[in-house]
Amino acid sequence: MKVYNNKDWAQFVFMVSKSDTIRKLAPLILIIFVYSLGVTYLEIHYFKVTADSWVRNLPQMHSLLSFVISMLLVFRTNTAYDRWWEGRKLWGQLVNNSRNFAIKIAGMVDTQDEENRRFFSRAIPIYAFALKDHLQSKATEYSLHDGEIKGLPTKLSPELHVPNQIAKGLFSRINHLYGERKITGDQLIVLNGEVSALTDICGACERIKNTPIPYSYSSFIKKFIMLYTLTLPIGYAYMLGYFAAPIVAFVFYVLASLELIAEEIEEPFGDDENDLPMEKLSKNIQRHVGEILD
Amino acid sequence: MKVYNNKDWAQFVFMVSKSDTIRKLAPLILIIFVYSLGVTYLEIHYFKVTADSWVRNLPQMHSLLSFVISMLLVFRTNTAYDRWWEGRKLWGQLVNNSRNFAIKIAGMVDTQDEENRRFFSRAIPIYAFALKDHLQSKATEYSLHDGEIKGLPTKLSPELHVPNQIAKGLFSRINHLYGERKITGDQLIVLNGEVSALTDICGACERIKNTPIPYSYSSFIKKFIMLYTLTLPIGYAYMLGYFAAPIVAFVFYVLASLELIAEEIEEPFGDDENDLPMEKLSKNIQRHVGEILD
Amino acid sequence: MKVYNNKDWAQFVFMVSKSDTIRKLAPLILIIFVYSLGVTYLEIHYFKVTADSWVRNLPQMHSLLSFVISMLLVFRTNTAYDRWWEGRKLWGQLVNNSRNFAIKIAGMVDTQDEENRRFFSRAIPIYAFALKDHLQSKATEYSLHDGEIKGLPTKLSPELHVPNQIAKGLFSRINHLYGERKITGDQLIVLNGEVSALTDICGACERIKNTPIPYSYSSFIKKFIMLYTLTLPIGYAYMLGYFAAPIVAFVFYVLASLELIAEEIEEPFGDDENDLPMEKLSKNIQRHVGEILD
Amino acid sequence: MKVYNNKDWAQFVFMVSKSDTIRKLAPLILIIFVYSLGVTYLEIHYFKVTADSWVRNLPQMHSLLSFVISMLLVFRTNTAYDRWWEGRKLWGQLVNNSRNFAIKIAGMVDTQDEENRRFFSRAIPIYAFALKDHLQSKATEYSLHDGEIKGLPTKLSPELHVPNQIAKGLFSRINHLYGERKITGDQLIVLNGEVSALTDICGACERIKNTPIPYSYSSFIKKFIMLYTLTLPIGYAYMLGYFAAPIVAFVFYVLASLELIAEEIEEPFGDDENDLPMEKLSKNIQRHVGEILD
Amino acid sequence: MKVYNNKDWAQFVFMVSKSDTIRKLAPLILIIFVYSLGVTYLEIHYFKVTADSWVRNLPQMHSLLSFVISMLLVFRTNTAYDRWWEGRKLWGQLVNNSRNFAIKIAGMVDTQDEENRRFFSRAIPIYAFALKDHLQSKATEYSLHDGEIKGLPTKLSPELHVPNQIAKGLFSRINHLYGERKITGDQLIVLNGEVSALTDICGACERIKNTPIPYSYSSFIKKFIMLYTLTLPIGYAYMLGYFAAPIVAFVFYVLASLELIAEEIEEPFGDDENDLPMEKLSKNIQRHVGEILD
Repeated sequence: MKVYNNKDWAQFVFMVSKSDTIRKLAPLILIIFVYSLGVTYLEIHYFKVTADSWVRNLPQMHSLLSFVISMLLVFRTNTAYDRWWEGRKLWGQLVNNSRNFAIKIAGMVDTQDEENRRFFSRAIPIYAFALKDHLQSKATEYSLHDGEIKGLPTKLSPELHVPNQIAKGLFSRINHLYGERKITGDQLIVLNGEVSALTDICGACERIKNTPIPYSYSSFIKKFIMLYTLTLPIGYAYMLGYFAAPIVAFVFYVLASLELIAEEIEEPFGDDENDLPMEKLSKNIQRHVGEILD
Repeated sequence: MKVYNNKDWAQFVFMVSKSDTIRKLAPLILIIFVYSLGVTYLEIHYFKVTADSWVRNLPQMHSLLSFVISMLLVFRTNTAYDRWWEGRKLWGQLVNNSRNFAIKIAGMVDTQDEENRRFFSRAIPIYAFALKDHLQSKATEYSLHDGEIKGLPTKLSPELHVPNQIAKGLFSRINHLYGERKITGDQLIVLNGEVSALTDICGACERIKNTPIPYSYSSFIKKFIMLYTLTLPIGYAYMLGYFAAPIVAFVFYVLASLELIAEEIEEPFGDDENDLPMEKLSKNIQRHVGEILD
Repeated sequence: MKVYNNKDWAQFVFMVSKSDTIRKLAPLILIIFVYSLGVTYLEIHYFKVTADSWVRNLPQMHSLLSFVISMLLVFRTNTAYDRWWEGRKLWGQLVNNSRNFAIKIAGMVDTQDEENRRFFSRAIPIYAFALKDHLQSKATEYSLHDGEIKGLPTKLSPELHVPNQIAKGLFSRINHLYGERKITGDQLIVLNGEVSALTDICGACERIKNTPIPYSYSSFIKKFIMLYTLTLPIGYAYMLGYFAAPIVAFVFYVLASLELIAEEIEEPFGDDENDLPMEKLSKNIQRHVGEILD
Repeated sequence: MKVYNNKDWAQFVFMVSKSDTIRKLAPLILIIFVYSLGVTYLEIHYFKVTADSWVRNLPQMHSLLSFVISMLLVFRTNTAYDRWWEGRKLWGQLVNNSRNFAIKIAGMVDTQDEENRRFFSRAIPIYAFALKDHLQSKATEYSLHDGEIKGLPTKLSPELHVPNQIAKGLFSRINHLYGERKITGDQLIVLNGEVSALTDICGACERIKNTPIPYSYSSFIKKFIMLYTLTLPIGYAYMLGYFAAPIVAFVFYVLASLELIAEEIEEPFGDDENDLPMEKLSKNIQRHVGEILD
Repeated sequence: MKVYNNKDWAQFVFMVSKSDTIRKLAPLILIIFVYSLGVTYLEIHYFKVTADSWVRNLPQMHSLLSFVISMLLVFRTNTAYDRWWEGRKLWGQLVNNSRNFAIKIAGMVDTQDEENRRFFSRAIPIYAFALKDHLQSKATEYSLHDGEIKGLPTKLSPELHVPNQIAKGLFSRINHLYGERKITGDQLIVLNGEVSALTDICGACERIKNTPIPYSYSSFIKKFIMLYTLTLPIGYAYMLGYFAAPIVAFVFYVLASLELIAEEIEEPFGDDENDLPMEKLSKNIQRHVGEILD
């Protein structure tokens, strides 16, 4: 995630950052530009379009459809942002949960019981790291992290579902404490909620990751943008001459940018500039849980 | 559900996939096209419309109403997408729930108690398969799945509500464990939440399935689109000549596509390309629960 | 509620069903039509409006305000639909709740304890029927339903709040079971949530029923539609001649339909075509609870 | 709150009720009307504006900005309505809560224990009345209501936070019952949720009451409406002559009405026509709790 | 937060308060104004633009894109407002929670147990103050507040996460009470929810604070506004002459204001006029908790 000073307009307007849509769209914008020049040339020099030609009135269709296309793009923007923000909320809950879990363990488990306290102090943050890797689908070596942790499966099998295995380890340990009467049944209920919340967060993140917006919308919006832009110079050439080319290119830049940003945002678990800082959040969890339990 | 590479614009724009609206709408688009040609012919050669005719100003009405129609379609799109996404969330919860359920059983039930562990290891995923079949209304043979499971009614009567019977079987078994003092009252409360969640998910899916958007909206939007498109060539013929036909056809394609996609999306429990991958999710549940309990 | 085949466009477009807005609006549309003819006649033959008259430019105001009116109508549509969908969700929860309640009773109450099982098997569905009648404000005879049920007040006083009395009866019985040690304290907590949920659903339905959208909005939207439509022919008569009449009538049909549908939808507890199938849902509850408990 | 028959359009369109925005805006509308006449007079007789004057094209700006202003007003409308509806939901929850509380007390407390039953039968509805008065900031005498209630502070100090004191009294009594072993620990947990819910509702109502929409939006929208309306006649005078005056006044009426209604709605705890019927709801609570506990 | 009388339009329209966007935008508006004058001068006196020039038709592009820009700004406005309102809700929950916590402690802890009552009476409000300072990132001296509180870490290390340390202190004390059998297990569960809620609120506030809207949107909207405004005078100069300058400046004022207000609102934890009154809310918590526990 890119941190930025929201107030500095000059920076936003004149700097073209690495993630700017204009970079990614540059080739397509150029093609549209050249295509528009071509259309204009044909209309002026070849077809010799005159004032009574039908193309004069084509822009009427474009303004008729401009509402539909704007609204579709805003629908797309809203949907993508909602997914991104839901992802952020889920990781926020993960932070909360991990802290609450640690605070409760700190209060319930005897301060002498070094072993159990260390177990949770290490196992809770591992969950966040495992989830991050799981969502980025790396076969990661977090199982090496901090040496082996007794109570978690010695080697987390990476071909299995890793966060689940950690959750299972956490719950078993809690249940074990209950079996040993180190915590009471009331405390069991309290702690149980924390472990469930972890797997709920994991499942919700998976849902966002593996369910893109329905294919039909994604396909229709792209088709619509292209057809809309490609018919635009036909009507504009008459009105604007060769200047139609930069204008059509600009309209395409605006429409395609919105679709492009939406595509980036709606998948918040990568490591682009717009993606969630899961690495940092995991480290925060590690630090906070450490502060509380060590 | 169709998995796709969101970034490949060329594929989206130039390929016409099986589920594309343009295929389904082709006959209607053709009719509109021919109708527009007919209207144009009549206006030009029969009525000989002149510059002072009233039809010159008809497009004013269309642009006046273009906001209303755009907004209605976006309302439709939002509603349909919300239903689809709610369906996806519910199945995501089913995954979470099944995992949590298994994790808790794994922690609570004695590791020696092979019988009970196997019961839950099989009965939990069955719920997901049963729900899938229930939502797709097939008289399915999942009761044969994996042989008979002791503790579930020997033969799930397909004419009864199958998911309910499984939930009843699950809850009875839990209560039985409590009666045998294999789990405590505190653990009972913990497990109880899981079973309730299953039937809540089932009920919510049924609600989405059996309650379409109110008839009045569905009917009004279709009427409105048709009346809007059919009056469009009357005004456009004067301005655009025979080229009015492709333009009217294109406007119709855009408006009708949105309605058509909405219709597909709002019912997420079929087995179209846009529908939820319930089969796959059920298998995931089976695999995860297996990993945890076996 | 009307069940319909969403895919059959022809049916939607050419059939005018009983609940179609065009039927209800027919008289008003006719009045608007005649009024527009009158305005046009006056402008053409009496005032002899010419090209430099100010009325030529009146449509500018209408297009300026067309955004506001469209957005207001969509706000109205969204609000009404949200109320309708919330009503549907509440009844969905009622179904879930009743099932969960029954499943738990089935697990907790001894299978020999015929009396208690029958009590709940009958009393739970009664709640749904009572709520339906309560929401439709009929002084109904459901108290006769299935003879007297021991444990519910012999005669539910219809002048009192009936669903409350049933909930009170259910809760008393549960508490009684707890007093007799037939269920434990842990089970009491589990069952208690179910009864609370019933009254929460009842209260939420009452809220939807007795709180229409604020008077100011309802009144303003209607005033705005009428003023907008009545000034429309003044500007259109010049441009469109006598054809202004059908066009103004069509614009009015569109705007008023949206308001009319919203009015119907926002009150989902009647027995119109668009209203919720509470009778059917109640019968489903009865059937499912029966399957589980009998 | 005004109860009204939604279906009677004539009433809405031709009657000007006391709370109609047209009454409150009348002076401002008149000023705008006279101002527009003045601008028109100046343009026609003093500046003698001709067809090539720039003012001819000013309306272009107004139509460019008409989207922005419409959308801002809809944002305003949505926000205000959401606050109003949230207020309504909170009071709905208060009704539910009070009923649930009473139902549970009725089941748990011995039917012989007149004293405790009477305490709750009186103290629960008092909370609703106190909240109403608290939200309307009256130094009220509800402490006199129904004589002194033993167990509540003899005189509720009005300078303190009254609803809090009642909640404290309720919780103390419940805890007292638990101390006297009249209710079990399980029942304590059940009842505890009810008291918490009461203070949560109180806090949420306070939040709505004491947090208006951010000053910047409120100020910007009003400035925008005025600047928009005041520049409107400059461009319209050329096109519409003296008829610009009623048209500008009408546009102002529409825009200002939306802002005005939003202002009224967003503060739902007064005693205007659009405000919530808290008095009535409190009386309903009193009646229902009475039915259940007496 | 600025408290204001919503009804006084004159104040809003004619007074320019300190936080008004017009002040902050004044330099930029001036630049745009001068730039527009320059463009107009060039077009009229240098390029001598004539009626058949293409620039005559440039405004067509601006009206085509006016929907997109309006909708983007409303998306921005909605998003910012949602963040602000979520922040407000979280602090409202903090108030509720603190009260509920105090009410429960008041009921559970023996009235003689001065020490514990004083501990909670002081420690609960400290949490709110600490959260405020934490969110405003001041290295504050609240640890000095009210002298040392036994049971909280003697000196809250400001370099650690302060609210977490207080929550840990609160939970330890509760668990201690449970260990000493001063509260039962049932009461532990009740109190536990309150402490969890505190850290959940803290985490959610942190999420809002440290996650701005994705960089891509923020950057794209600013670029779009600037490009849109800077090309506007090119088309308007022909139509409006030198009067294009104030009009372009006004359009820029409207668009940039919306972006500017959104920027201020979306970060609700500063101490601007639009920010949340956290200081005041914390003092309220202190007063209410004091009323309840002292």
